[in-house]
Amino acid sequence: MSTLSPQPYKGTRDLYPEDKRIQNYIFSIWSRVSQSYGYEEYGSSILEPLEIYAAKSGQELANEQTYSFLDRGGRTVAIRPEMTPTISRMVAARRQELSYPARLYSIANFMRYERPQRGREREFWQLNIDIFGDDGVAAEAEIITVSDSVMTAFGAKPDDYVIKINNRKLINFMMAQYLGLDAVQAQFMVKLLDRKNKISQKDFVDQATEVFGDQAEEGLKKVEKLLNATSMADLPAEIRDSSAVKEVQELFTILERNEVKSLVFDITLMRGLDYYTGMVFEVFDTNPENTRSLFGGGRYDGLVGLFGAESISAVGVALGGTTFLNFLELHSLLPTINSTTDIYIATLGDTVKESTKLARDLRNENINVEVDISGRKLDRQIKIAYKKRIPYILFLGEDEVKIGIYTLRNIEKSQEYKLEFTDIIKLLKENK
Amino acid sequence: MSTLSPQPYKGTRDLYPEDKRIQNYIFSIWSRVSQSYGYEEYGSSILEPLEIYAAKSGQELANEQTYSFLDRGGRTVAIRPEMTPTISRMVAARRQELSYPARLYSIANFMRYERPQRGREREFWQLNIDIFGDDGVAAEAEIITVSDSVMTAFGAKPDDYVIKINNRKLINFMMAQYLGLDAVQAQFMVKLLDRKNKISQKDFVDQATEVFGDQAEEGLKKVEKLLNATSMADLPAEIRDSSAVKEVQELFTILERNEVKSLVFDITLMRGLDYYTGMVFEVFDTNPENTRSLFGGGRYDGLVGLFGAESISAVGVALGGTTFLNFLELHSLLPTINSTTDIYIATLGDTVKESTKLARDLRNENINVEVDISGRKLDRQIKIAYKKRIPYILFLGEDEVKIGIYTLRNIEKSQEYKLEFTDIIKLLKENK
Repeated sequence: MSTLSPQPYKGTRDLYPEDKRIQNYIFSIWSRVSQSYGYEEYGSSILEPLEIYAAKSGQELANEQTYSFLDRGGRTVAIRPEMTPTISRMVAARRQELSYPARLYSIANFMRYERPQRGREREFWQLNIDIFGDDGVAAEAEIITVSDSVMTAFGAKPDDYVIKINNRKLINFMMAQYLGLDAVQAQFMVKLLDRKNKISQKDFVDQATEVFGDQAEEGLKKVEKLLNATSMADLPAEIRDSSAVKEVQELFTILERNEVKSLVFDITLMRGLDYYTGMVFEVFDTNPENTRSLFGGGRYDGLVGLFGAESISAVGVALGGTTFLNFLELHSLLPTINSTTDIYIATLGDTVKESTKLARDLRNENINVEVDISGRKLDRQIKIAYKKRIPYILFLGEDEVKIGIYTLRNIEKSQEYKLEFTDIIKLLKENK
Repeated sequence: MSTLSPQPYKGTRDLYPEDKRIQNYIFSIWSRVSQSYGYEEYGSSILEPLEIYAAKSGQELANEQTYSFLDRGGRTVAIRPEMTPTISRMVAARRQELSYPARLYSIANFMRYERPQRGREREFWQLNIDIFGDDGVAAEAEIITVSDSVMTAFGAKPDDYVIKINNRKLINFMMAQYLGLDAVQAQFMVKLLDRKNKISQKDFVDQATEVFGDQAEEGLKKVEKLLNATSMADLPAEIRDSSAVKEVQELFTILERNEVKSLVFDITLMRGLDYYTGMVFEVFDTNPENTRSLFGGGRYDGLVGLFGAESISAVGVALGGTTFLNFLELHSLLPTINSTTDIYIATLGDTVKESTKLARDLRNENINVEVDISGRKLDRQIKIAYKKRIPYILFLGEDEVKIGIYTLRNIEKSQEYKLEFTDIIKLLKENK
């Protein structure tokens, strides 16, 4: 038989213990912050019927980026590329039993068939936080506040990131009332504004001219006015007075009361997904090396209703693990994380039986213990404990067994202690 | 557009918070026990090249049960149906860098295209625990001891389950030396013994007769002798003296020293997967309602070598979440698990601002707080806290805000307390 490749599938990563530790650190804080606001965890299968993405996630995602296939029973299924359709489906299935507002979060993996690059992998993890059944701007405020708390829980400072906010209703008002575009033109203009920072100024003007047709001169002037508005106060009066802007202002008021900083109103923020109906927001790293958004979310009131239920209002946000890890690394916010193992028992001489018993006694005190069962030379055993980042080595020779006093080495501090069993427990618990 | 179904994909389950709580409880103990023996967590993608299963997992698993398909780049991939080939691939990829014995565990999801039934779902979760780079029986002993510790950590008693042990080398010796079968006959006989409890005595004899051909009379007598052996001492002398039996005896000695009870030698235990090379073992519920094995594992020394590396010895075990949940339910070992939310703040009158501040202060003390933002009637708010199994309700009206003393209700005990902020913290921390 020919040799199999030891490499993981393209665009995915194997997480060895030193990588998984970091992921677990990130996940544990994601969970802690979500739970601190009363959000409860849910889970679901990685496979979904493809049609739930075709409905509202946008053509690109459903048609070009999903891992979709026919199962052995002839059903067209997809590995989930995002969570919003799934949690909407789940809420629709239990709409009578759930209590509203329902606060739900998940930490789950997803796949998209894209060209792997920095900040983007084919398999990635996301934190999804959603609130169902609240129509008011308090729901958006809470979701954005939780997102902000996630950032600060990792030690991020207000000028490390920026929270950009816009509103789909405002976008629609701009397109139809202010710019006078029909539905097709509006769609082109939205996509163009979305791409604005990725194309040249000349390309932008050329493409905008095409969209406006014979109204190009006036249209371009209006667009320029919009793009120059860095705050709501700068907006042309007819937009500033719209109900959509008032909603955004109300949101800012609550967020400021919630002590959320780093807020910016950004009229060019579009969000790619088709299902948003109201407020949209994204969180960006202020470091220009990390251009992809960290959090992205918004209100999507129509999605639950697609699953045969009366409509239930919804606001949600997703945070991608890959970009977030880049953020933590760029801002030096990742601590050094030791092994989950507390003690490595290095055995000298014939102490197998005794090491088994000692390890059992330590485990009964909730101390994680790896025992050397190889019987190799002591310096090799010590090297392994260092390499695995296990904080303590306990040396167990025949003398130690006899007198019941053990040598414990704190690797980080390069200190050794001679301790009885109960003192080992005490020391470990104090340093946990 | 026609309505989308709110049901999950066939054979998979949506986990609402009340289900996810139970899963998290199970996962946390799986992790705790694995870590207590010095095993470290790893992770990997759900997609793998199909060929890694075709190699050694057995025809049925690779050809009939995988979710496999062509990706958009023409690669044949599979959603992983098991973890052993993945972790073997990962060890092969880093064989120079890892420290041996390498102790690794994972908690991950898998998919198999099977008819869903009790104890079997198309998507399922497993705990996988593996040790690499130790040739001795101490490795098997440790893996079985960890498995046993998982059972007892959930409160299982020794007579709730049985650990069955056999050895592939012994099986091979029986087939070739004792029964005189060639390779093809041996394969039939192994499959037949594996199915023994699922078919009638007559069918068993008929099929065994066919395998033996003209040696049927003598062959059947020998098989009967084997099947009557309930311990190693009962085995025919020529088998009893084989080196494979001696290895099993040595394993039993270590396991007894490790205080592992519930051990049984079972010469009919075959294990379906092709990659096992030595000891094999399974853990069964003693309750006849739960017939599928809980843990299944063994030694598989040849698998890492398939990935272009020198061979590295390996012993591993997997525990399936679905059967395990059935086990916990049948033996009443599942505790009642509350919400992760500690306090539901019920608001009366216009106390939105104050509730936001109070919630923030509580969260800073690591207390998880859900705040009512709906402003609905108090009895509706209380009902929701009960339904969500949140242990405490804090009532916040304008009077409470004025005097700084709050009413806190312990739902389980039906008790109410009038407390200042610092006393709330104290009470909650004492009861966490």
